[in-house]
Amino acid sequence: MQTVKAAIVGASGYSGEELVALLARHPRVEIVAVTSRQSAGRTVADVFPRMAGSAIAGMKFVEPSVDALMKSGATTVFLALPHGLAAEFAAPLRKAGVQVVDLSADFRLKSAEVFAEFYGERHPAPELLAESVYALPEICGGSALKGAGLLACPGCYPTSILVPLVPLLRRKLVRSDSIVINSLSGVSGAGRKADVPLLYAECNESLRAYGAPKHRHLSEIEQELSAAAGETVAVTFTPHLVPVTRGMISTIVVRPAEGTGAGTVEAAWREAYGGSPFVRVVTHLPDSKHVTDTNFVDIAVREDKRTGRLLLFSALDNLGKGAAAQAVQAFNISQEWEETTGLA
Amino acid sequence: MQTVKAAIVGASGYSGEELVALLARHPRVEIVAVTSRQSAGRTVADVFPRMAGSAIAGMKFVEPSVDALMKSGATTVFLALPHGLAAEFAAPLRKAGVQVVDLSADFRLKSAEVFAEFYGERHPAPELLAESVYALPEICGGSALKGAGLLACPGCYPTSILVPLVPLLRRKLVRSDSIVINSLSGVSGAGRKADVPLLYAECNESLRAYGAPKHRHLSEIEQELSAAAGETVAVTFTPHLVPVTRGMISTIVVRPAEGTGAGTVEAAWREAYGGSPFVRVVTHLPDSKHVTDTNFVDIAVREDKRTGRLLLFSALDNLGKGAAAQAVQAFNISQEWEETTGLA
Amino acid sequence: MQTVKAAIVGASGYSGEELVALLARHPRVEIVAVTSRQSAGRTVADVFPRMAGSAIAGMKFVEPSVDALMKSGATTVFLALPHGLAAEFAAPLRKAGVQVVDLSADFRLKSAEVFAEFYGERHPAPELLAESVYALPEICGGSALKGAGLLACPGCYPTSILVPLVPLLRRKLVRSDSIVINSLSGVSGAGRKADVPLLYAECNESLRAYGAPKHRHLSEIEQELSAAAGETVAVTFTPHLVPVTRGMISTIVVRPAEGTGAGTVEAAWREAYGGSPFVRVVTHLPDSKHVTDTNFVDIAVREDKRTGRLLLFSALDNLGKGAAAQAVQAFNISQEWEETTGLA
Amino acid sequence: MQTVKAAIVGASGYSGEELVALLARHPRVEIVAVTSRQSAGRTVADVFPRMAGSAIAGMKFVEPSVDALMKSGATTVFLALPHGLAAEFAAPLRKAGVQVVDLSADFRLKSAEVFAEFYGERHPAPELLAESVYALPEICGGSALKGAGLLACPGCYPTSILVPLVPLLRRKLVRSDSIVINSLSGVSGAGRKADVPLLYAECNESLRAYGAPKHRHLSEIEQELSAAAGETVAVTFTPHLVPVTRGMISTIVVRPAEGTGAGTVEAAWREAYGGSPFVRVVTHLPDSKHVTDTNFVDIAVREDKRTGRLLLFSALDNLGKGAAAQAVQAFNISQEWEETTGLA
Repeated sequence: MQTVKAAIVGASGYSGEELVALLARHPRVEIVAVTSRQSAGRTVADVFPRMAGSAIAGMKFVEPSVDALMKSGATTVFLALPHGLAAEFAAPLRKAGVQVVDLSADFRLKSAEVFAEFYGERHPAPELLAESVYALPEICGGSALKGAGLLACPGCYPTSILVPLVPLLRRKLVRSDSIVINSLSGVSGAGRKADVPLLYAECNESLRAYGAPKHRHLSEIEQELSAAAGETVAVTFTPHLVPVTRGMISTIVVRPAEGTGAGTVEAAWREAYGGSPFVRVVTHLPDSKHVTDTNFVDIAVREDKRTGRLLLFSALDNLGKGAAAQAVQAFNISQEWEETTGLA
Repeated sequence: MQTVKAAIVGASGYSGEELVALLARHPRVEIVAVTSRQSAGRTVADVFPRMAGSAIAGMKFVEPSVDALMKSGATTVFLALPHGLAAEFAAPLRKAGVQVVDLSADFRLKSAEVFAEFYGERHPAPELLAESVYALPEICGGSALKGAGLLACPGCYPTSILVPLVPLLRRKLVRSDSIVINSLSGVSGAGRKADVPLLYAECNESLRAYGAPKHRHLSEIEQELSAAAGETVAVTFTPHLVPVTRGMISTIVVRPAEGTGAGTVEAAWREAYGGSPFVRVVTHLPDSKHVTDTNFVDIAVREDKRTGRLLLFSALDNLGKGAAAQAVQAFNISQEWEETTGLA
Repeated sequence: MQTVKAAIVGASGYSGEELVALLARHPRVEIVAVTSRQSAGRTVADVFPRMAGSAIAGMKFVEPSVDALMKSGATTVFLALPHGLAAEFAAPLRKAGVQVVDLSADFRLKSAEVFAEFYGERHPAPELLAESVYALPEICGGSALKGAGLLACPGCYPTSILVPLVPLLRRKLVRSDSIVINSLSGVSGAGRKADVPLLYAECNESLRAYGAPKHRHLSEIEQELSAAAGETVAVTFTPHLVPVTRGMISTIVVRPAEGTGAGTVEAAWREAYGGSPFVRVVTHLPDSKHVTDTNFVDIAVREDKRTGRLLLFSALDNLGKGAAAQAVQAFNISQEWEETTGLA
Repeated sequence: MQTVKAAIVGASGYSGEELVALLARHPRVEIVAVTSRQSAGRTVADVFPRMAGSAIAGMKFVEPSVDALMKSGATTVFLALPHGLAAEFAAPLRKAGVQVVDLSADFRLKSAEVFAEFYGERHPAPELLAESVYALPEICGGSALKGAGLLACPGCYPTSILVPLVPLLRRKLVRSDSIVINSLSGVSGAGRKADVPLLYAECNESLRAYGAPKHRHLSEIEQELSAAAGETVAVTFTPHLVPVTRGMISTIVVRPAEGTGAGTVEAAWREAYGGSPFVRVVTHLPDSKHVTDTNFVDIAVREDKRTGRLLLFSALDNLGKGAAAQAVQAFNISQEWEETTGLA
């Protein structure tokens, strides 16, 4: 079985670490380089004691540079970097013909203007936006991903929201001006950053909304919802930080189109996701603990007959289907492999 | 300073324990009896090791019975019992002229029919409903509570929702058919019950909605919202169970009346709650950890200009302002004492 | 590749669930039955929503009975039952020539008298004790396990203690009367039992020793330590319950033999465990989070030069190397397969 | 009732915040200044949202300087600063006749040499060591504290260890060369520091020993144990970091003197602590959740008859009896007030 040589840039963050773990046991990937500014010179096992005993335990982190990546022989580079920084690597790598799987926000938006509005800075490489694919396999479809050179992997909030909503908007089953979203995220979603509000003693026994009403992820959420609805969709989105390490749930309240009930929704989902190995339509209310360390997203629906609204629920692992595992899934499809390769 | 002799029934649950702790240091209360079926015969310090060293450490739990309560000389009895059971105590105690401060759901609803609909059983003592006061001091007002004989203390979800919403509905500042509520509750809210889904290993690292779309608390929420709005109000309410011991936040999304913005909301709150020592209108998004072990409820507002909606936020301690501390506050007012007595 | 038909009895507890998950993806196992008194009639996916989408998602739990197990065609039965109950299944199964991999305490002790002393009841099947192998592969050695019919899988505490200590006692590197052990266990170690002290709100923000000074696991710990030392060894062992779901660490303080230092200890460990894929001798102090969801046990040593003592540290997953994964490892060896099969 | 004007330096850390909360409701204290480098210019309610509504909610943090403290009129200054920095304030304040209650390690050791050995730097103000009192009231006794000008408040680990051990060493009930200590600490004990290892996602679901075998607190532990024993005592001490915000337990294993059993130990404790309102000799094994947010330390004993050892257990709140509340207790005694003032 032929393998692809891959490198992971920004490997010492939570998404990066997860990528390293997934790719290290991926049967068709050979990791040829892992980079990290802080950890350069240290081995994988030293930085990630979990990885001691794995095949790449002794591999050394190197300083991130396009040169080093080119020399590594990697033909695919995964970027687990902050937005802005990712584009600095993506541009020269694409020029050199290297496939880029980017987990940052840099290439998720089709519009450089929307990027500037939500991220407060000019887009670093607008010329690449046309090429990039919004790599949510269940939404963009496999054909868009096959052979793609620049995969813009979606964030965790968008994934948890788009998976339940997009099939309904495409089928005009919900009123697009009625969408109210509440999401709960585990703390690893904020990254491995030395930040006082992320300390254990700050997050434990703490429940708080944040980032409302205009969280950055809203931009990609609305871009994709609008594309699905065929009209501009604006939603109310409130993220919350809650004391779990991993896990995310979203509760989405909508007004259905005339005649749409829970059964219609489930039928639409089953039609849309019948061939998707990672979407599970469940009858219980999804619980994040059932999807941690997996690439699954669980979705469910309830009718609120008293108010005529529908409630949509989803659960995923913010570092799994919400980040690294989904990136591997999209990469698998881009390589025309089974999309579950290395993810079961 | 004259004191009131008080008894606590069902004292070994979480709300009961909190009541015991609060009343034990209340300067105007003398605890004369604590009851508990499971703990009868054991001392307070034995059952609640935290209370060792307190004045009532050596007091023994007794079997719950109206007789025992009458003999104790209590002139006020706090009931921390499941619904249905509370009424069995309340009825004879009221007949005997004893003040009842009930933390269960038995006397919160004005309508026995609504009780039957939401609790799935006939109301156990409908003759007492007319007398009972829905004891949310900030909403019902002090005059309703002064001298009241039967205080129906609201649940934690209703408190977290009514405090931000009622003043706005009274002033017609929000559209009453637009209300979507998401609440997050700590696990102690489910009570000290030997139940597998409440085990540490089930709740830790778990995020889940439950009870949607028709949680029992919805009945009292809508009763009070309707009273405030002067019309029938139906809302969408989704509670979530999250891994904290204590704490509750609610995120409420509404469409405002024409011309209503965040400033209007804050002004309405300050007008409504200017004299309320336990409501804090804050500018940051409320965090449950700032209110645990207190009787405070923190509230805040944000405008979602993109969708024209308003976001209301609240935080409280489900065992404090959401249960025991609020009961003490209402009791203080009923006795015509400072409402902060024993709560500062 | 030939497979073994296996059944899991008591599959709805934490160890049982872990066994089901591990065996479901084991390349050489076909699960033919899962039993559970409470869950009989329900599907695997219904009871364990994590397993939705797996090959056995639709398999139904059956009532536990020897008959049902025999009919299932299982040639290996894993028992994840409370002590006492396990023997009731093991005896007839062994008589019928079925291999039994038992995770309970029933067959760990060589002496029925010691069992009676520590478990407070007569041993239920003393005639099987001679046949059973104490299935800690790193200690008992592969040859004892090959072809074994009754595998008595050790508990989590013993595994965390025996792995670091046994090679040292065998080499007379520590004074056998000097051993003081403190262990910390995650709450899943207490099982999926509806028990008030195991509730989230009881265990969260709680640190407590328990079971001292004569925890049941002490019996097997001392049995194996004595065997290693060639003399009777008695130790002081204090388990603690701490708020994690999974994970266990042990801190062991000993007086070394003359001339033994950290280097001697590490050399002994490397000699003993050079061929063991699941023991990692590390230089940092072991952290349970590096071994959760694995079959690894991490061990380390420090010299306390000021007192002349040695400190030994270990970390494992109480449901992994401390229960289900270790059972699979021992089972692999018994079948003469690679011991890592299905565990990587 | 006359009050004392007090200032808190370094008030934005966890111990500092706790001091502010305790002193703000202390009936005999008027807080005249709170300092914090990072928070200077912000109000108490802004930095500590919990304190909104308190009397000092509007007080502004000021830059820490001896000048500012002198101008504030404070006659007592509480220092909640890192070691080394505390002495820079203590020296000029003492010169000016201001009482200093220091929560750092700067004045706990009698010997500047031991300080240099354990803290790796020269002692910053050795001339003050003679004056300072090791302010563990139950150990040093009230007379040493009355009127004291420099109170060196002990750390959390030492308090949890000295309270159970000192009375036994004073009475020669334990063999001083036999002491093995394991302690578990909540994460707030590490301070409010933006440090990756203290992040929620690093500490949650993590159990780890650290700082062994020569943690800095060992120096004061052994100083006080030696003083109690009348001979040099060296102990083995292993601290562990576990996922609770607040709370600490210690498990201490010792060999008793001939004839000493659990009864002897309890009698010694009752004799030593009969008049101490904050030491509770309990019969159950102490649980940290019973002492959080209090100044209590719970202690218990068990005999390990099989090995002839004794097990001593203690539990306290690392920010309460282990830091701020204990500092207030010692300060109360120094002012010749009831030692429970402001702590009940």
